[in-house]
Amino acid sequence: MEFLTRRARALQAVHDAGADLLVVSKLTHIRYLTGFTGTAGVLLLGDNPVLVVDFRYGRQAEAEVPDLPVNGDCAPPALWRTVSEILAGLPGQVGLDTANLTAQQYQVLTGGPCAGRTVDCPGLVERLRWVKDADELTALRDAAGIAEKLLTMIPDWLVPGRTENSIAGEIERAQRALGAERSAAPILVSSGERSALPHGQASPKLIADGEPVLFDFSPVVRGYRADITRAFHLGPPSAEYLRLHAAVTDAQHTAMAAVRPGVACRQVDAVARRTLAGHGGLDRWFRHSLGHGIGLDQHEAPLLSPYDDSVLEAGMVVMIEPGVYVPGVGGTRLEDAVLVTESGCEPLTTSDPAVVVL
Amino acid sequence: MEFLTRRARALQAVHDAGADLLVVSKLTHIRYLTGFTGTAGVLLLGDNPVLVVDFRYGRQAEAEVPDLPVNGDCAPPALWRTVSEILAGLPGQVGLDTANLTAQQYQVLTGGPCAGRTVDCPGLVERLRWVKDADELTALRDAAGIAEKLLTMIPDWLVPGRTENSIAGEIERAQRALGAERSAAPILVSSGERSALPHGQASPKLIADGEPVLFDFSPVVRGYRADITRAFHLGPPSAEYLRLHAAVTDAQHTAMAAVRPGVACRQVDAVARRTLAGHGGLDRWFRHSLGHGIGLDQHEAPLLSPYDDSVLEAGMVVMIEPGVYVPGVGGTRLEDAVLVTESGCEPLTTSDPAVVVL
Repeated sequence: MEFLTRRARALQAVHDAGADLLVVSKLTHIRYLTGFTGTAGVLLLGDNPVLVVDFRYGRQAEAEVPDLPVNGDCAPPALWRTVSEILAGLPGQVGLDTANLTAQQYQVLTGGPCAGRTVDCPGLVERLRWVKDADELTALRDAAGIAEKLLTMIPDWLVPGRTENSIAGEIERAQRALGAERSAAPILVSSGERSALPHGQASPKLIADGEPVLFDFSPVVRGYRADITRAFHLGPPSAEYLRLHAAVTDAQHTAMAAVRPGVACRQVDAVARRTLAGHGGLDRWFRHSLGHGIGLDQHEAPLLSPYDDSVLEAGMVVMIEPGVYVPGVGGTRLEDAVLVTESGCEPLTTSDPAVVVL
Repeated sequence: MEFLTRRARALQAVHDAGADLLVVSKLTHIRYLTGFTGTAGVLLLGDNPVLVVDFRYGRQAEAEVPDLPVNGDCAPPALWRTVSEILAGLPGQVGLDTANLTAQQYQVLTGGPCAGRTVDCPGLVERLRWVKDADELTALRDAAGIAEKLLTMIPDWLVPGRTENSIAGEIERAQRALGAERSAAPILVSSGERSALPHGQASPKLIADGEPVLFDFSPVVRGYRADITRAFHLGPPSAEYLRLHAAVTDAQHTAMAAVRPGVACRQVDAVARRTLAGHGGLDRWFRHSLGHGIGLDQHEAPLLSPYDDSVLEAGMVVMIEPGVYVPGVGGTRLEDAVLVTESGCEPLTTSDPAVVVL
């Protein structure tokens, strides 16, 4: 368990920011730092950390976080009042994560028990989570493995006349049977013209013969998310569709080849865009970012986008997901997670990128 | 479509709060006021409202919100910058929903384009959503209908030797086939001793013969959530378990009988607690609130809790979910949504509350 190491690094960052303790309310941060998996709680991370949860989660928190004191007996609406009372008794500068506290929570804390002794610390824990440790990588690989198994099952489910939604249900059932906890994000199943939607959630639309069908799903293992996109086609694809998919495949390939420590995120994004431009100007139909970090959250920093100057480091896990979306016609995308290594990158999913023709 | 009516009421509330427009960033508020279902966006609600989304959702927003101008062409990371630019060109007092903006977003808006002309408006749209309109009730009833159909299917799935997780997967598959979009909340399947967890998410635990199994799930229809809990038992339950369940049934019954317009939420909660107390002091094992509002969000105000002085109004939909949780032994709960009517309440789900013995 890496929680002790993670908390030590976080506390060092808190001190570096000029604070003595940090109020951590984002649940994935709390899970990262302690292992607590409940849906409400606040971690006060100082020299003597304490995890505050309401009574619904008291026993669970004690079981999941045996190495920290748990204050777990308040009623759910009293959680923040309890936090305020504890803070009133703790000396020193209090770090507030303005990226994750609501304005109202911030006003209460800065006006009340911490008045005059707060330090804004936006994004402090986020930054620590950019590079994954060994436990995180194991979970990410386990989730990726389930995602790839699911891909092999789609041909059994994908028949004309079914709704996108019902096939998403098959994915949900199968991923649970394979050991996933749930879907991290809405399952995207977009068929026919809907494949031109960059974020086409499974809908009641009936899938018809002759249509492309894009699948994008995210099984979760121990809180960590896979994320994969592959294209299927009922019947032979058109030459134009295959041209789009070949361009996307090329863009993903060249982008992956550009990934290594020291490279700016926006550079990797630019490589993919240039590759698509070389395929008859298809970059004009690729308007989202090339990718994003992934872990306990679905979209973590850094972003592989034209706007992100961050530099890749070994141990980061980022998505590489170029797509082209031609309005009124259709679209396609490929998406895989890669681990940034010392010399380049290692894809966590390696399923054949070709269109699966059924 | 009730969007026009809802926006008119919201705008009146904005004016009453001393503002000319409101920055709405909570997605369920945006859906309530416009019908937009995407996962990112900001509604500027003034005399001339505008929906700002990034380009991923531009076409979708135009289709879903044909009656409002959509600004839908920015890159995803530029969403708030776009909002700031639009706000800079709009005169008047700007209402900020401090309950839903992050402290960081609030700092940017109050420090930038709206400096010196902001009004804190926490919870303004929340309050409007307490009472449901006709469209909302139809969706809530549709979701409730799917929840009840799922209950009838559980006996087919619930056999010894399966994991809690795999049965949750069956629910997910079936609810999609029945027309639900997804699960609103983690599916709770808690068997054996885990039934004593008030919030027992489906786990890898194997379900054994002789165990109680508590199911709590929430299919979503058009954004609106059902929420239902029923108890199952593999083999004959113990007399003690039946005693707990009879007490919970009695508590739910007396609480429902106490629901009517004009009654304080905490009074309904107190009725359930008193009933449990009359069953040999079982109220000591009932520590969460009796219920909560439900709609586009899973937990809406008002709360049926000892801490909520709000008064029930006709048209509210609230959960009635008493439970007893005996640590180390087990627990049980019943949960149904009720619509507050002029004279009392009408349950949206009416499945037999008895333990289903398999």
